[in-house]
Amino acid sequence: MRPSGRQLSEMRPISIETDVTRHAEGSCLIRVGGTHVLCTASLEERVPPFLKNSGLGWVTAEYGMLPRATHTRMRREAKNGQSGRTQEIQRLIGRSLRAGLDRVALGERQITIDCDVIQADGGTRCAAITGGWVALRLAVNKLMKVGDVITDPLPDPVAAVSCGLYAGQAVLDLDYPEDSEAGVDGNFVMTGSGRLIEIQMSAEGATFSRSQMTELLDLAEDGVKTLVAAQKDATA
Amino acid sequence: MRPSGRQLSEMRPISIETDVTRHAEGSCLIRVGGTHVLCTASLEERVPPFLKNSGLGWVTAEYGMLPRATHTRMRREAKNGQSGRTQEIQRLIGRSLRAGLDRVALGERQITIDCDVIQADGGTRCAAITGGWVALRLAVNKLMKVGDVITDPLPDPVAAVSCGLYAGQAVLDLDYPEDSEAGVDGNFVMTGSGRLIEIQMSAEGATFSRSQMTELLDLAEDGVKTLVAAQKDATA
Amino acid sequence: MRPSGRQLSEMRPISIETDVTRHAEGSCLIRVGGTHVLCTASLEERVPPFLKNSGLGWVTAEYGMLPRATHTRMRREAKNGQSGRTQEIQRLIGRSLRAGLDRVALGERQITIDCDVIQADGGTRCAAITGGWVALRLAVNKLMKVGDVITDPLPDPVAAVSCGLYAGQAVLDLDYPEDSEAGVDGNFVMTGSGRLIEIQMSAEGATFSRSQMTELLDLAEDGVKTLVAAQKDATA
Amino acid sequence: MRPSGRQLSEMRPISIETDVTRHAEGSCLIRVGGTHVLCTASLEERVPPFLKNSGLGWVTAEYGMLPRATHTRMRREAKNGQSGRTQEIQRLIGRSLRAGLDRVALGERQITIDCDVIQADGGTRCAAITGGWVALRLAVNKLMKVGDVITDPLPDPVAAVSCGLYAGQAVLDLDYPEDSEAGVDGNFVMTGSGRLIEIQMSAEGATFSRSQMTELLDLAEDGVKTLVAAQKDATA
Amino acid sequence: MRPSGRQLSEMRPISIETDVTRHAEGSCLIRVGGTHVLCTASLEERVPPFLKNSGLGWVTAEYGMLPRATHTRMRREAKNGQSGRTQEIQRLIGRSLRAGLDRVALGERQITIDCDVIQADGGTRCAAITGGWVALRLAVNKLMKVGDVITDPLPDPVAAVSCGLYAGQAVLDLDYPEDSEAGVDGNFVMTGSGRLIEIQMSAEGATFSRSQMTELLDLAEDGVKTLVAAQKDATA
Amino acid sequence: MRPSGRQLSEMRPISIETDVTRHAEGSCLIRVGGTHVLCTASLEERVPPFLKNSGLGWVTAEYGMLPRATHTRMRREAKNGQSGRTQEIQRLIGRSLRAGLDRVALGERQITIDCDVIQADGGTRCAAITGGWVALRLAVNKLMKVGDVITDPLPDPVAAVSCGLYAGQAVLDLDYPEDSEAGVDGNFVMTGSGRLIEIQMSAEGATFSRSQMTELLDLAEDGVKTLVAAQKDATA
Repeated sequence: MRPSGRQLSEMRPISIETDVTRHAEGSCLIRVGGTHVLCTASLEERVPPFLKNSGLGWVTAEYGMLPRATHTRMRREAKNGQSGRTQEIQRLIGRSLRAGLDRVALGERQITIDCDVIQADGGTRCAAITGGWVALRLAVNKLMKVGDVITDPLPDPVAAVSCGLYAGQAVLDLDYPEDSEAGVDGNFVMTGSGRLIEIQMSAEGATFSRSQMTELLDLAEDGVKTLVAAQKDATA
Repeated sequence: MRPSGRQLSEMRPISIETDVTRHAEGSCLIRVGGTHVLCTASLEERVPPFLKNSGLGWVTAEYGMLPRATHTRMRREAKNGQSGRTQEIQRLIGRSLRAGLDRVALGERQITIDCDVIQADGGTRCAAITGGWVALRLAVNKLMKVGDVITDPLPDPVAAVSCGLYAGQAVLDLDYPEDSEAGVDGNFVMTGSGRLIEIQMSAEGATFSRSQMTELLDLAEDGVKTLVAAQKDATA
Repeated sequence: MRPSGRQLSEMRPISIETDVTRHAEGSCLIRVGGTHVLCTASLEERVPPFLKNSGLGWVTAEYGMLPRATHTRMRREAKNGQSGRTQEIQRLIGRSLRAGLDRVALGERQITIDCDVIQADGGTRCAAITGGWVALRLAVNKLMKVGDVITDPLPDPVAAVSCGLYAGQAVLDLDYPEDSEAGVDGNFVMTGSGRLIEIQMSAEGATFSRSQMTELLDLAEDGVKTLVAAQKDATA
Repeated sequence: MRPSGRQLSEMRPISIETDVTRHAEGSCLIRVGGTHVLCTASLEERVPPFLKNSGLGWVTAEYGMLPRATHTRMRREAKNGQSGRTQEIQRLIGRSLRAGLDRVALGERQITIDCDVIQADGGTRCAAITGGWVALRLAVNKLMKVGDVITDPLPDPVAAVSCGLYAGQAVLDLDYPEDSEAGVDGNFVMTGSGRLIEIQMSAEGATFSRSQMTELLDLAEDGVKTLVAAQKDATA
Repeated sequence: MRPSGRQLSEMRPISIETDVTRHAEGSCLIRVGGTHVLCTASLEERVPPFLKNSGLGWVTAEYGMLPRATHTRMRREAKNGQSGRTQEIQRLIGRSLRAGLDRVALGERQITIDCDVIQADGGTRCAAITGGWVALRLAVNKLMKVGDVITDPLPDPVAAVSCGLYAGQAVLDLDYPEDSEAGVDGNFVMTGSGRLIEIQMSAEGATFSRSQMTELLDLAEDGVKTLVAAQKDATA
Repeated sequence: MRPSGRQLSEMRPISIETDVTRHAEGSCLIRVGGTHVLCTASLEERVPPFLKNSGLGWVTAEYGMLPRATHTRMRREAKNGQSGRTQEIQRLIGRSLRAGLDRVALGERQITIDCDVIQADGGTRCAAITGGWVALRLAVNKLMKVGDVITDPLPDPVAAVSCGLYAGQAVLDLDYPEDSEAGVDGNFVMTGSGRLIEIQMSAEGATFSRSQMTELLDLAEDGVKTLVAAQKDATA
């Protein structure tokens, strides 16, 4: 029934290739089906002005899409500035990663996560969060190896998945054909231990009931477990 | 225990004054406690290019804040463009109002809802949605009165409220002092008949459990009922 | 003969409501007929770089129009930057208020006057100057009450009115229907004691004589007297 | 008593060199003392959208300053957009030239006047108007010579001069040292037959009386006569 | 003597992986040593306005760098617009590819080549031209396969390499450590048959002789032969 | 055979008028045939941040075109920012002048060269480099006269000329009609003693051979000799 032939609760294949770029302190190429996102972590030994001398660390994120990541070419954002959608997504990524971060343990330094979509097939923001956490994990590992950070500031992984109502049924991990048809869809950010970080459910020209909401959340919990397992494999 | 002395499930006083500006097809000044938002509806007998000759109507929204709506003066957005936050909010308002709209019944015309915050004390986006629906309702009433629209395109009101975890407890309708302290907060957009339109729950540097989520959602349902009653009074 | 039925030398009704917004150090909503402008004064205990350590104070102004203050909705300036017209107006407001200010008496602090047009019906820049002075007066009163300012830096009120040639006759206080037809119109900024601060007379596709100029200036002097009386009532 | 040793009512030397650039339909280099402005007129056989099929012509103006026209180098406007001051000046130039234009006689075509300041020593906007009219005159002459325009659309020259109160006395044609000291200064745009087009008098941190205003206006009338004579010589 | 231990006339290892992204009509990931550029070709059945109804095709290019392609993170161009350097490079890429294009044979359609640097180690513009030609070749192959294009519009490959004077000696294919030290460097764009398309030699704080120029050009001819062979392998 | 009737190796008439503007430390108006460029040198006793306390000087350049320097009026760059072409040209001018500069001898100060095209007829960037060097020379002369600079930081003049293949033949100093037809053209920057600084040869929709390249370079060497002689006359 799903365009891809997947079961309602079936994720797309996940692969996370690490250390894909030479200069970044941490990096990975995450593939969730046809959605491919390159995530890099850049470490700086300074924090934004509002954190100066606070002893606290900071994680922030930026998101971009290559012009031909999509079916038809999109205008390059460098030519007309970041769209509202782009800014909304990168604020979400930053907030999600910070929710799983012990900022005291990281110490007064900043890590910037860049998530650049090489190929898009739905769920790019979720893949960016999941892959972004891996890049962050790898950068923090380096800091811990050399003793710059002692207590692990990332005690619990952070991952994200989308769910939605497609043709009246709750499905997990929407791809582009599903996403463009779904009247209701949601992005769910959670930790490896099942805590919630962010829920964004939204209906375009439709509404939904509490029981549908519960169904989507149940699916999302399963999806995040699969993603967290893949994160652990990649960073083991 | 709340800074304002309110009960955990107590909304702030609500007032909705209609027809506050001469030129707009619909308008109101909504006050939710110290949060005051001027909402206007502007009708145009044309739609965006992607809807040309579709027979479908469109509702879109814009959001702004006067520079001294806040405790300390903010830079005027006309001087440096709309921030990511502003764009995110106005996309939410538009999406929310469209979810409660019968676009066939409206016919091929566009209504733009402008929500300008005169005074801010937390919950401005929720007040904007609630007041924006009133302005929209009034503009549609005019179209129906002259017979340009026959079937009511707004069968079910749309309203929004925020809830959050403040000092470890679930509270309804956060004001600014609560909002700036809450580790978890959410915005809930619903219809008068209790259907869900949008849920945005987010944790800054924290996480939350499913049972906390349920508690917040229960509070929100109560709050929206109160708001819908005020909308009905104002547009009766 | 005037569209509104007013006499040639008759002002529109004036009302000035003070303390209309909670956070600003001074505020008013001025209504000159159908023109409604919200004016706020924001105090900062710092001055622009060129005045550092000079002991002199500064007053500056910003001007905006809500998108549906006008007959047909205008594009929101936050979306495409301030127009030349807007910048020209806010420079005029700032210059006018500074001309009536004793900058030594104010001391090294800055007050920013924000004038936001809620509803427009001609003469918005004049209403902004007149209302802006009231907001400034109220903010300065607070500084004097607590003893931060000793000598009154605002010895003489500042107000402004427009006049023009409408259907060949000199008329006072142009409303929108008159303003859009007038071949010649002028804005006159004066003090309560009748000194001139700024005269801007301009002809679009027309010219005028010195005797017409004198006639307009005479009308303006009368108009400013009425406005200054309203300012005094409001701030008494 | 004036820094330049001039009499109170003495203009600086004026020279207007025509046809200084090859491509423009009309051009001149006007020198008013140390203020040198290159003015070009560019003809297009089309009008702005709001005049399409109206039969009416249009004249518009743009103004710029070369970075080192001033004592110390200014930032190039191409690098950060036109300042409010620049926009205000170019609106004034366009309005002034249109006031002396018979738009029916010109017919449905547009002439753009570019005024670029090569060297600045006070009064650049007045020199731009005076020189801009010469460039416009020359371009119109070409149209009339080939019979594209029959009735002269420029029956009366337009010129402008500044006056101000310097060291307490009314002086004509302020140069930079005077301009930067004057508490009150005005720009006066008039026609060759003595009609008024635009008066902009403004006080920075000061006020002025009606009799001072009259004195400045008298001086300006004399100055404009001198300028109009120079325009006639240049375009004879 | 070279930091990498290469011979003076030794290129870095080259690899060209094709069809690396799903949506583009042609794509490759070119690696020249540590410089990795993703090149995509996007076909549109329309041309820029100046070519409408000309029967001629067009190829244009855009260039970008991911923020962490470099040793230290660079600001994302989407946040502050394309730099002069970026624009200069993308103009060069477009010009180079058009020089090897038979625009009549391509017919009235446009192909946009996007070159995004994933990892930078010197010579990114040369790699972009070389890889961009491969993406273009693959997109044109598709057009020829379905019969939309009959005569091959790409008769001769286009490739580019840099050379420079490093420590006083002419070296081929500068990597980043060499590039940042070289007083003179050049980019050479040529065809497979040895014709010249573009030579850009430039000295920062230095000069060079004609015989040095000749030496660099000789090296470049050898380098381009190697690159063209790799292009042919990749597109065979 | 050339549109102008010139010999293949004949330059246009050159004139360099110095000290044409009052405020600049050095200035000239260079005319190469119908191409007229105003060049000014502005001295500042400070350097960009990256040179602070290095003891080294800096020369940078900016380039602009008046809107009606061209056959048809171009949009004013101050209205939409500097184009890629403009930025590319001003980077070239700065690099060229720095290549002939002894930055130790200049000492820690910056000279900005502004090149503004008054009238364009091909070869504006070359005229800007040649005239820019004259303005720089004059500014440096002043520094040497007062003893602020002891050793001459400009031991060898810098000049530039364009050559190209027009109607199949190599020609020197392209004017606009030639430039717009030439399939191949190049800009050559050299010193008075014949050293090369920058070579930019580029083919639009064409290619060229090494022997053609040599021919163009030979022509350029002759052209630069003529220009350097004119520079020496002007600054003697």
